[in-house]
Amino acid sequence: MAPPPAIGIFRVEGVKRVEPGDDLGGMIADALRAMDLELTDGDIVVVTQKIVSKSEGRLVRLEEVNPTRKAFALAAELEKDPRVVDLVLRESRRVVRKGHGVLITETRHGFVCANSGIDMSNVKSGYVVLLPLDPDASARGIRRRLERATAKRLAVIVTDTFGRPWREGQTDLAIGCSGIEPTERLAGKKDPFGYVLRVTQPAVVDEVAAAAELVMTKRSLIPVAVVRGVKYRRSEAGVRSMVRKRSLDLFR
Amino acid sequence: MAPPPAIGIFRVEGVKRVEPGDDLGGMIADALRAMDLELTDGDIVVVTQKIVSKSEGRLVRLEEVNPTRKAFALAAELEKDPRVVDLVLRESRRVVRKGHGVLITETRHGFVCANSGIDMSNVKSGYVVLLPLDPDASARGIRRRLERATAKRLAVIVTDTFGRPWREGQTDLAIGCSGIEPTERLAGKKDPFGYVLRVTQPAVVDEVAAAAELVMTKRSLIPVAVVRGVKYRRSEAGVRSMVRKRSLDLFR
Repeated sequence: MAPPPAIGIFRVEGVKRVEPGDDLGGMIADALRAMDLELTDGDIVVVTQKIVSKSEGRLVRLEEVNPTRKAFALAAELEKDPRVVDLVLRESRRVVRKGHGVLITETRHGFVCANSGIDMSNVKSGYVVLLPLDPDASARGIRRRLERATAKRLAVIVTDTFGRPWREGQTDLAIGCSGIEPTERLAGKKDPFGYVLRVTQPAVVDEVAAAAELVMTKRSLIPVAVVRGVKYRRSEAGVRSMVRKRSLDLFR
Repeated sequence: MAPPPAIGIFRVEGVKRVEPGDDLGGMIADALRAMDLELTDGDIVVVTQKIVSKSEGRLVRLEEVNPTRKAFALAAELEKDPRVVDLVLRESRRVVRKGHGVLITETRHGFVCANSGIDMSNVKSGYVVLLPLDPDASARGIRRRLERATAKRLAVIVTDTFGRPWREGQTDLAIGCSGIEPTERLAGKKDPFGYVLRVTQPAVVDEVAAAAELVMTKRSLIPVAVVRGVKYRRSEAGVRSMVRKRSLDLFR
């Protein structure tokens, strides 16, 4: 008999449009119930950053932004909207690279990404969406709410889309997580040939984020997926623990 | 009734130990048959680089390497094996970063990774494994062989494990592909709010590579997975088309 898949990825349809203050965990639970998708222990619920930010009110009306002189200058240089550039700078610790109309910054969380993660797509005209202030806390809140609604032990990953140096195309990465150890520490363990694995530390939450993107995709507006069958350890270390220390970073 | 998963990931067990000259596509077909996993049109077969390299004879016996003076100096600086450093340099176009015992290079293919992708784990003692010379061609050969064996339209992705700047942990990325468009081009398409998606280009093959790693994992020695249910376009552009042009690269 054909074996079942080791991992299954479910598209969660029917999550209502999210507004500031909404109970996002509850809305996801409702959508799961409506589509008869019963969660089981160990399921990972993957949620895109945008609806998390919206539920947390991280929307800014561009009309209300008064750009600084610095933002005006940088916007002219990059041919960007000075109000957006102003927000990008406000949300960042430093500018990592600029050019080709692109502004790559390090966010206050320590993520290196385009425009401090500020997003203009899939949002009503005249508004932009900022990253959650504490995406690990966002994930924790959603996990607790969903665990209460389902009486199962779950993990939650909040994801966003990142470009990469040297390589075209973007993938989704985890920006927050709860109930799951973000990387699996194999260092020091032996492979089957007896070679000690020195640096291997699979970034499980990023791999799950990438896998989930395959069913969410930008155009389909599916903001939630469930990934079933992944082996992981429970942890509250959060994605913050994945930000490389300055002293160990060859790319600073 | 509960919906089926949109995507299923199957672990392919029982692939025999690969030796130089082996018919890898045929061995994967045998393993699939033995486990009763019948492929269907559109399935993506994900194969880790190591067994591809082994089948192509990309093994080097360290005893036979005579390091250059440059390799000796760099090895002393980084506290690494000069024979390995010699191979890393030979397989590279340039050194991108060095420090903390790590040597990050740009390979002849244009990939930026640690040690030019040379691997010492899961290989018999005294040997190391180099990346395939042309991983897109490797993927094409395996795809054709598997399509012949199964009479299905398939895609094949060859993967390897990469670290990332700024972020701890590694994920698997595609280094070669065949039968699948590596990135989905959404630029110019409109999102449901009418905003034109400017830069969105999901790196589908990298997301599939990351997803497959979740069932392969370093310690389990599972070198092949099947990913079912992903929507993609057929193409022979290959992963080589994802290497960012020098003129567009802010990180050169």
